[in-house]
Amino acid sequence: MAQVATLNRSAGPRSEKTTSARPSFYVPQAEECRLFEVAHAERLAVLLKGPTGCGKTRFVTHMAERLGRHLTTVSCHDDLTAADLTGRYLLKGGETVWVDGPLTRSVREGGICYLDEVVEARKDVTVVLHPLTDDRRMLPLERTGELLEAAPGFMLVVSYNPGYQNLLKSLKPSTRQRFIAIELDFPEPDLELHIVATESGLDEQTVRPLINLATRIRALEKIDLEEACSTRLLVYAATLIRAGIAPRTAVEHAVIEPLSDDADVKAGLRDLVRASFG
Amino acid sequence: MAQVATLNRSAGPRSEKTTSARPSFYVPQAEECRLFEVAHAERLAVLLKGPTGCGKTRFVTHMAERLGRHLTTVSCHDDLTAADLTGRYLLKGGETVWVDGPLTRSVREGGICYLDEVVEARKDVTVVLHPLTDDRRMLPLERTGELLEAAPGFMLVVSYNPGYQNLLKSLKPSTRQRFIAIELDFPEPDLELHIVATESGLDEQTVRPLINLATRIRALEKIDLEEACSTRLLVYAATLIRAGIAPRTAVEHAVIEPLSDDADVKAGLRDLVRASFG
Amino acid sequence: MAQVATLNRSAGPRSEKTTSARPSFYVPQAEECRLFEVAHAERLAVLLKGPTGCGKTRFVTHMAERLGRHLTTVSCHDDLTAADLTGRYLLKGGETVWVDGPLTRSVREGGICYLDEVVEARKDVTVVLHPLTDDRRMLPLERTGELLEAAPGFMLVVSYNPGYQNLLKSLKPSTRQRFIAIELDFPEPDLELHIVATESGLDEQTVRPLINLATRIRALEKIDLEEACSTRLLVYAATLIRAGIAPRTAVEHAVIEPLSDDADVKAGLRDLVRASFG
Amino acid sequence: MAQVATLNRSAGPRSEKTTSARPSFYVPQAEECRLFEVAHAERLAVLLKGPTGCGKTRFVTHMAERLGRHLTTVSCHDDLTAADLTGRYLLKGGETVWVDGPLTRSVREGGICYLDEVVEARKDVTVVLHPLTDDRRMLPLERTGELLEAAPGFMLVVSYNPGYQNLLKSLKPSTRQRFIAIELDFPEPDLELHIVATESGLDEQTVRPLINLATRIRALEKIDLEEACSTRLLVYAATLIRAGIAPRTAVEHAVIEPLSDDADVKAGLRDLVRASFG
Amino acid sequence: MAQVATLNRSAGPRSEKTTSARPSFYVPQAEECRLFEVAHAERLAVLLKGPTGCGKTRFVTHMAERLGRHLTTVSCHDDLTAADLTGRYLLKGGETVWVDGPLTRSVREGGICYLDEVVEARKDVTVVLHPLTDDRRMLPLERTGELLEAAPGFMLVVSYNPGYQNLLKSLKPSTRQRFIAIELDFPEPDLELHIVATESGLDEQTVRPLINLATRIRALEKIDLEEACSTRLLVYAATLIRAGIAPRTAVEHAVIEPLSDDADVKAGLRDLVRASFG
Amino acid sequence: MAQVATLNRSAGPRSEKTTSARPSFYVPQAEECRLFEVAHAERLAVLLKGPTGCGKTRFVTHMAERLGRHLTTVSCHDDLTAADLTGRYLLKGGETVWVDGPLTRSVREGGICYLDEVVEARKDVTVVLHPLTDDRRMLPLERTGELLEAAPGFMLVVSYNPGYQNLLKSLKPSTRQRFIAIELDFPEPDLELHIVATESGLDEQTVRPLINLATRIRALEKIDLEEACSTRLLVYAATLIRAGIAPRTAVEHAVIEPLSDDADVKAGLRDLVRASFG
Repeated sequence: MAQVATLNRSAGPRSEKTTSARPSFYVPQAEECRLFEVAHAERLAVLLKGPTGCGKTRFVTHMAERLGRHLTTVSCHDDLTAADLTGRYLLKGGETVWVDGPLTRSVREGGICYLDEVVEARKDVTVVLHPLTDDRRMLPLERTGELLEAAPGFMLVVSYNPGYQNLLKSLKPSTRQRFIAIELDFPEPDLELHIVATESGLDEQTVRPLINLATRIRALEKIDLEEACSTRLLVYAATLIRAGIAPRTAVEHAVIEPLSDDADVKAGLRDLVRASFG
Repeated sequence: MAQVATLNRSAGPRSEKTTSARPSFYVPQAEECRLFEVAHAERLAVLLKGPTGCGKTRFVTHMAERLGRHLTTVSCHDDLTAADLTGRYLLKGGETVWVDGPLTRSVREGGICYLDEVVEARKDVTVVLHPLTDDRRMLPLERTGELLEAAPGFMLVVSYNPGYQNLLKSLKPSTRQRFIAIELDFPEPDLELHIVATESGLDEQTVRPLINLATRIRALEKIDLEEACSTRLLVYAATLIRAGIAPRTAVEHAVIEPLSDDADVKAGLRDLVRASFG
Repeated sequence: MAQVATLNRSAGPRSEKTTSARPSFYVPQAEECRLFEVAHAERLAVLLKGPTGCGKTRFVTHMAERLGRHLTTVSCHDDLTAADLTGRYLLKGGETVWVDGPLTRSVREGGICYLDEVVEARKDVTVVLHPLTDDRRMLPLERTGELLEAAPGFMLVVSYNPGYQNLLKSLKPSTRQRFIAIELDFPEPDLELHIVATESGLDEQTVRPLINLATRIRALEKIDLEEACSTRLLVYAATLIRAGIAPRTAVEHAVIEPLSDDADVKAGLRDLVRASFG
Repeated sequence: MAQVATLNRSAGPRSEKTTSARPSFYVPQAEECRLFEVAHAERLAVLLKGPTGCGKTRFVTHMAERLGRHLTTVSCHDDLTAADLTGRYLLKGGETVWVDGPLTRSVREGGICYLDEVVEARKDVTVVLHPLTDDRRMLPLERTGELLEAAPGFMLVVSYNPGYQNLLKSLKPSTRQRFIAIELDFPEPDLELHIVATESGLDEQTVRPLINLATRIRALEKIDLEEACSTRLLVYAATLIRAGIAPRTAVEHAVIEPLSDDADVKAGLRDLVRASFG
Repeated sequence: MAQVATLNRSAGPRSEKTTSARPSFYVPQAEECRLFEVAHAERLAVLLKGPTGCGKTRFVTHMAERLGRHLTTVSCHDDLTAADLTGRYLLKGGETVWVDGPLTRSVREGGICYLDEVVEARKDVTVVLHPLTDDRRMLPLERTGELLEAAPGFMLVVSYNPGYQNLLKSLKPSTRQRFIAIELDFPEPDLELHIVATESGLDEQTVRPLINLATRIRALEKIDLEEACSTRLLVYAATLIRAGIAPRTAVEHAVIEPLSDDADVKAGLRDLVRASFG
Repeated sequence: MAQVATLNRSAGPRSEKTTSARPSFYVPQAEECRLFEVAHAERLAVLLKGPTGCGKTRFVTHMAERLGRHLTTVSCHDDLTAADLTGRYLLKGGETVWVDGPLTRSVREGGICYLDEVVEARKDVTVVLHPLTDDRRMLPLERTGELLEAAPGFMLVVSYNPGYQNLLKSLKPSTRQRFIAIELDFPEPDLELHIVATESGLDEQTVRPLINLATRIRALEKIDLEEACSTRLLVYAATLIRAGIAPRTAVEHAVIEPLSDDADVKAGLRDLVRASFG
């Protein structure tokens, strides 16, 4: 199938890449950067765990830049099949020609392929990952009969959020035991203060009550909310304040309303706002 | 894939647009217009919450006109897939050519794309929205391999009705926490009186009992009805009256019958009609 | 897409029409004709409610004739999709060409489109109806990218039978509140006597016991039968009698057997036959 | 679409027909033949009810011959769709051409179309039948846009077995109330004796114990068996006996084993065999 | 459609056949051979019941050879549809041409068609069998409109295993009552000893403990195992022994491990091995 | 279909093969190698049972090399159908041509085909395997009508993990009883020490606490974990240590996090780490 591959490389579509001109802002929480580097050097795949908005995507972006590798990100969902990752035949000029999917392109190029929320994908996806994550490092393309060996720099990274309890969807042990696993969490308050100020352009003093509010909300997490307030929402609130919206109004629309539809829960959150903004 | 894009732009189908000649009638309830403008300027996506017929669509139409942006509206439903939004390959002259979907066209043109009742759509839709709602503002087209960066004016707006309790369908926290959220409700009585009179062409005095009736029905909301009486139904009733139908008959067919099939509930509503029309 | 539309109009298939030569027999029950005329003039959509065989289809047929509009009737079912109503691409000479569905043809021609038992259709159908039932009166054709404005005479009519309790299938409030609603029921006994005699060619005196029987069966409705005896079955029974079948035998095969398979229920119905035919 | 119809008639496939050379053996149970004739003359559709193997198919075959009409039989099942009955587009020489389904051919030719076990078919099938069973007698072909009026002799017959309790599958009242209904049952013993002897070629005296056995088994019906012994199985047993198999062995393989897999039930049936064959 | 059939016969694929050079080894258990011959002569279809590995397939192979008929075997499964049996349209040179399925080929050629584990097939399959199993002996090909009469020697044989309790999958009475039924079981010990020795090439004395073991396991059948030990497994064990594997090891891998994954059940089976091999 | 086969062999895609240059490291646990060799010589199929990561894939790779046979590995999953194994028609130059699947290629070439986690595949897959696993050794290709006899060296190997309790998915007895079964488990401690040291390049002394930890975790297996720690994870931990990561950190990320998301379970595992690394 060399022609197909060549055709694909010269004229086909290109995968998502990091643009080297815009380096990603990332402050390490612990040893995650060192572990990632060793895993890359030792050709081990990495599983990231952590809550919504804690910085998993940003961490991978940052590491891809540090390692000088192209990054391909695929957000997984209920209808994502193995063919969406590996490729499929399309009709061109009356012929069926093979078009690589994003995983196949990354395997050929030796890039980093990041499958976000991998447990959401359909079951056949995990099977495609197995031969890529043992010492074979191979991607079998059933439809073309090709057995692709991963280029040297290739690395597979997957993530999921263990906070969602989902009986129907979980990684099978035979899949999990193919990865080095790294757990990430929200940044420590001072680090988060620095991140929110940098991202929003708002001064740190005005940001501080937002960090206090987030700390209080995260302490409530297991009681009322499906998931705690992410760093992202704090950046949104700070952005609205910097653009001239009153802090209470900004928090109402960037924190409280996105977190809940329930009147009682929202009233409880407003109490925390009063306590934080004093 | 530049040719495809060009082909698409010159010969392909066009998305739904606001016609600048007919300015939309809209009276703000609170700070929603200011928030929407800031969100647009700061490139934040907006989530609208509110009951049926409270004016969400009209608000978005009004804001699109104010901001001078094309508006693309997509009503979401059970069978709406990511491909319906992003595009698909069609056969033309023996070739498969890519045809942009409404979201892709809006992303290319820098318009406002409004996904009405977004929770109804299939799960793969929300995944398409994720890279559009963080700082990447990108739309990956898996099928073509294209990674589209949103044009400067592009804005994503989604809506849903929190009044429907649906265990199977809800926005995941990882999706919700990507939006500024604005809650809308029915207009205050005096404002609604003005709206209904303007829309139906009936004088305000004859409209007033309809507003009184709506206020009474909305107070009942949590008891008997799946959802309260919308402003739209009041406009229908006023239109029938203005066309010569007796008020009681107009209310029977434009308010009571559309609200319920249950004989007891309808009898209760007729009591409210008697009280309102005295 | 103007060519497609033109092609479609000149060579494509034609929608179902009323033949003006055979005027429909219809006797109004209440104000339904007047309301329908006002709704048509004011460009409001109509929702008809009522039991099986009470005359909903005939009423719409009658009104279409009175208003001089083409009528397109679509019986909705579990597998009816939006594409069945709006149209789809077909292969012709190696090209995919668009072929309008029945709703699209009616929207273009300014006819009346009647969706019978609309709750049976799939969910994406109701979404297609929304922009047709508000002040936009538009039909977006997602697949072609066309946004079709309804021709002046266009009117949408839908029906359903509230007697069926179906938790899985019902009209959402956001759909119901887009229609003027008219409830129809079986005709009053004298009117029904006149209808059955006219339709079957049997004299009114011989028809009378059938009307008595129907009255008795309908009083039982909530006890034993899934649905009461329709006017249609009375016409069938009268037709068999007029053709020489003994009245008791005719009722057995045209009323009792069609209504139930249960031996006890059928015995109970035969008691009512004895009481009615004395 | 006249060309399509013509093409179809001259070169397309032909529907199932009765071969007039082999007249069907049928002995009436009651007034079913007279009712069927009147229904045909009055253009009413017929619903047949009755247990497996009681002769529904044979009755329809017999009546089709008596009325000189082509008979088209379709056995309905879980996957039978409206398109299987009405027709579909096929690719021929790069063009899509319409090919009529069996119902459409019968409607065009004015034949009798018999849908066996109609409740097994998918829901969209019943919807196709509605406009054929009221005074319109029309078959709308959604895909071609054609609205076909039934040729004069056309008659629709459907059957089902009320003995199967199936909560998921039943005829809706709005469908049932479109038919004259005739209930058939197993023939009376003397009649059945005559039928089995005629069909198998075995003398009536040797057939008699089989009839006695069937009578005993049918009295047990509601206790142990999913369904009673059909006339067909008696014919099979008599055929084996006539071919030289011992009566007890023939009954074992043609009656007992086909009726049950349960050891206790089979032992009970063997007791009845001993009682019947003395 | 004569051309299609001719094309199919001359150039199309061929169905599975018995090779007359290798006569099948089969020892009758009872009257099954005689019954099968009569059924073939009288054109009756046959239903075989019996546990896994008791010799159903071999019996049919043997009878096909004895009767000089081609045998077509189809193993049924969850996804087997009527079209897999009857045929489908394929694209050839831009035309859709009809290709017969295995059942259709058998019907045309007058062979024996054996549907193994018929209850596993999808529901539409049984419907295809109905007109083949009554006096019509016809196969309607809905897609081509052809109504195929079975060639004289054609015979339909189906099998299933009544030992599997499956509420969702069973033959409907309306299907079962179309067959002569023959129940097969494991062979008597002496007969089985002869079969295992012949098939494996191991001397009868060394085979005897295997037969003893099978007898003991089958007596346990309803207690611990989903299904008893088949003759096939005994042949496997004897083959391993003949090839030099120790008897206990051979039984461990050819009988115990294939029968169960449960440690307790396997321990119990090993007790029986000790008792049998003493 | 000889042309198709020839075309396929000369120009079609090739199946996955073992590269003879890299001999596989494998230390036998018991008689599994001898049994595998006899099964291959006697043309019996083999079923491998065992937990995740115990070496099933490596065992098959090793045996394929020893026997000098090409190995084709297919990881089975929920959506794997018979056609994925046997082949399908693809469009080439306007013609549909048949392309062999991996099983068909292995059957033609006389290789070893290994279906990993076969219970995950769809039901139609097991049916394809049946005629390959009895004395016929045949692969019927329903779509082409070809009946392929396996080349002499062909061998079928399937595996599954009996530790997963799955009511919906299990091998039917009629499938299981077609295989010789071999159960594999984790290697004995000394053997595992040798394997981990060899694979990771870490000295045996530093590896020993990892083996102690694995022994302790496996003793817990039935209490807290879905599945015990595999040899693979030990190799990952040893690799990280060899690359300079502190042992406790390496175990945290290569053993504890991959095994569980539960805080209590992870705390319990850390106790075992302290005990093992003392």
